[in-house]
Amino acid sequence: MSSVDSYIHNFNAGPSVLPKEVIEQAAEAVVNFNQTGLSLLEYGHRTPAFTAVMEEARALVKELMQLDEAHQVLFLHGGASTQFMQVPMNLLDSKETAAYADTGVWSSKAIKEAKFFGKVDVVCSSKEKNYRCIPNDFAVPNDAKYFHITTNNTIYGTQWQSIPRTSNVLVADMSSDILSRTLDFNAFDLIYAGAQKNLGPAGVNLLVVNENILGKVKRPIPTMMDYRNHIQEGSMLNTPPVFAVYVCLLTLRWLKKMGGVAAIEKLNNEKAALLYGELDSNELFATTVVKNDRSKMNVCFTLQDPALEKAFLDYAQSNGIVGIKGHRLSGGFRASLYNALPMSSVQVLVEVMRQFKHSIA
Amino acid sequence: MSSVDSYIHNFNAGPSVLPKEVIEQAAEAVVNFNQTGLSLLEYGHRTPAFTAVMEEARALVKELMQLDEAHQVLFLHGGASTQFMQVPMNLLDSKETAAYADTGVWSSKAIKEAKFFGKVDVVCSSKEKNYRCIPNDFAVPNDAKYFHITTNNTIYGTQWQSIPRTSNVLVADMSSDILSRTLDFNAFDLIYAGAQKNLGPAGVNLLVVNENILGKVKRPIPTMMDYRNHIQEGSMLNTPPVFAVYVCLLTLRWLKKMGGVAAIEKLNNEKAALLYGELDSNELFATTVVKNDRSKMNVCFTLQDPALEKAFLDYAQSNGIVGIKGHRLSGGFRASLYNALPMSSVQVLVEVMRQFKHSIA
Repeated sequence: MSSVDSYIHNFNAGPSVLPKEVIEQAAEAVVNFNQTGLSLLEYGHRTPAFTAVMEEARALVKELMQLDEAHQVLFLHGGASTQFMQVPMNLLDSKETAAYADTGVWSSKAIKEAKFFGKVDVVCSSKEKNYRCIPNDFAVPNDAKYFHITTNNTIYGTQWQSIPRTSNVLVADMSSDILSRTLDFNAFDLIYAGAQKNLGPAGVNLLVVNENILGKVKRPIPTMMDYRNHIQEGSMLNTPPVFAVYVCLLTLRWLKKMGGVAAIEKLNNEKAALLYGELDSNELFATTVVKNDRSKMNVCFTLQDPALEKAFLDYAQSNGIVGIKGHRLSGGFRASLYNALPMSSVQVLVEVMRQFKHSIA
Repeated sequence: MSSVDSYIHNFNAGPSVLPKEVIEQAAEAVVNFNQTGLSLLEYGHRTPAFTAVMEEARALVKELMQLDEAHQVLFLHGGASTQFMQVPMNLLDSKETAAYADTGVWSSKAIKEAKFFGKVDVVCSSKEKNYRCIPNDFAVPNDAKYFHITTNNTIYGTQWQSIPRTSNVLVADMSSDILSRTLDFNAFDLIYAGAQKNLGPAGVNLLVVNENILGKVKRPIPTMMDYRNHIQEGSMLNTPPVFAVYVCLLTLRWLKKMGGVAAIEKLNNEKAALLYGELDSNELFATTVVKNDRSKMNVCFTLQDPALEKAFLDYAQSNGIVGIKGHRLSGGFRASLYNALPMSSVQVLVEVMRQFKHSIA
């Protein structure tokens, strides 16, 4: 290819690509935060300057997601794996039942943790179809305390294109598609998302919760696990992961500048359309997911001839493409098209696919 | 003073001063990690390059603390506040009793969380002395499942100068003096420390645990809370707080280069001696802590005439000194002398104290 340069096209599934300007601003804050002469890494979290960071980040999430008054925004320690347990600890009494949709590894992990706290009804599963689709035709019992879905499945490349509406409290793990598309976020009662895909670096977790669903379980909840304590303290119950929250703020500012969720959704749709279009027309490749359930964040594909896999990977790499090896559980390839991945990277990948076809023709 | 320059003397209690070279290397990694052309913030945690970071950080802790084979090193999400609950969850059955020493706010918080999981026997407390000393003359029942101490008390400026030896499993919150002095770390069965004082930035927690004490409680432990799962997965059970772990590694490398714990202890002793010496001889000031229990990390002091407080704070600030305002609970002043604070900063503070005395004489 002629367009080879030193730019790295980062298709990693997470931690993953961040906007260039966010990285530059983050590096500056490590040296000199807010013109204070101090590094953000050695800067007190109870200072007005950092409290302002936390407040702006929370307010920007509210604004970008168009959340109503009842929905509170928190930045918590840990990733989604901690929420797998913290959600049922806060919402599910030991004799109650929660409904879960099983759409892959992360759903299964969430289900496993819920069983520590109450009963679990797996109301639908695509396990027998190797998680290559999103379940349909299922019902959620009215008395299920909540219904939990994983909106996007990073490993298998599936995504709920429409959010199921039931009478239950709705809980979603949105780690890998948060803020990537317009949704009625107020229809969710609890949303959690590890930051390291669309929001920022690893080490912090976004939580959005309708405060009306809290305080209804009988079990005593340890202080750090009780969402109400974090709300009460403005997401500063203890020393927060200062730097990770700051990088989230920078990313949120960037997203707002880009035009917000609707604008990024349009770009995400274009990126996904370009890549899936090539996969559908280039006979060397095949996709692995049912068409209607294809993820716009994680595009999973294979080579029709597995013997060509290494050659393709090498060729892609020689063109500055990294992070497209599939997860070990699903094999093949996976290109993650998160918010910060530029269209130009997708164009390079598609061009590499075309050239690769010509090269072996 | 003549020595005024733009250097900032950072006496913050935490997050707090880090070595200059660590900050420079951290900033470089935000832009270009390990010459990969990618930011560490967008770099996969399962890559050989990051796995090597985690392994080197764990190994350096083992080396610097001279830990035996049974002591495992983990870097976990969250700060010490999470450990307040995670420790009893892993070690204390509901009908068992744990012994705690109450030496201030952080001990009290740890005690509060332990009560969610079992019984607590507060075997000693300096509460009635406003936490201005470390308790002595106490006994720990042999059948207490473990004995918990807070080795250094950031808010009140007290520190256990000798570690009490009992027959019990010994647990310590070392958040504010970890790696600052030589101790027989193998005498502890569990040590935890939020990183943001001597180890790195906020957002990660160091845990050292004797694996022989684990697996003895009957309660089911959620996956992310069970230390054994983290040991099993080499501290990579889920996506770790990548950047915070990396900055800890840089700080550990710096500490090793400085000569290790014994060498930094010598410097810490000299810094503390210089500052306490001035406080003891300058009649404008008073210390608040019983002499034998003075912390070498957090030096708390007052002005004999409270009316001079603002003037002193302003004068210090005009000489580049930040972070010496006392905690709101204890008032007065607090100068934190963590590992990375250079002797030159203490010299400036002492000189400021002397000049201040002359200025009002």
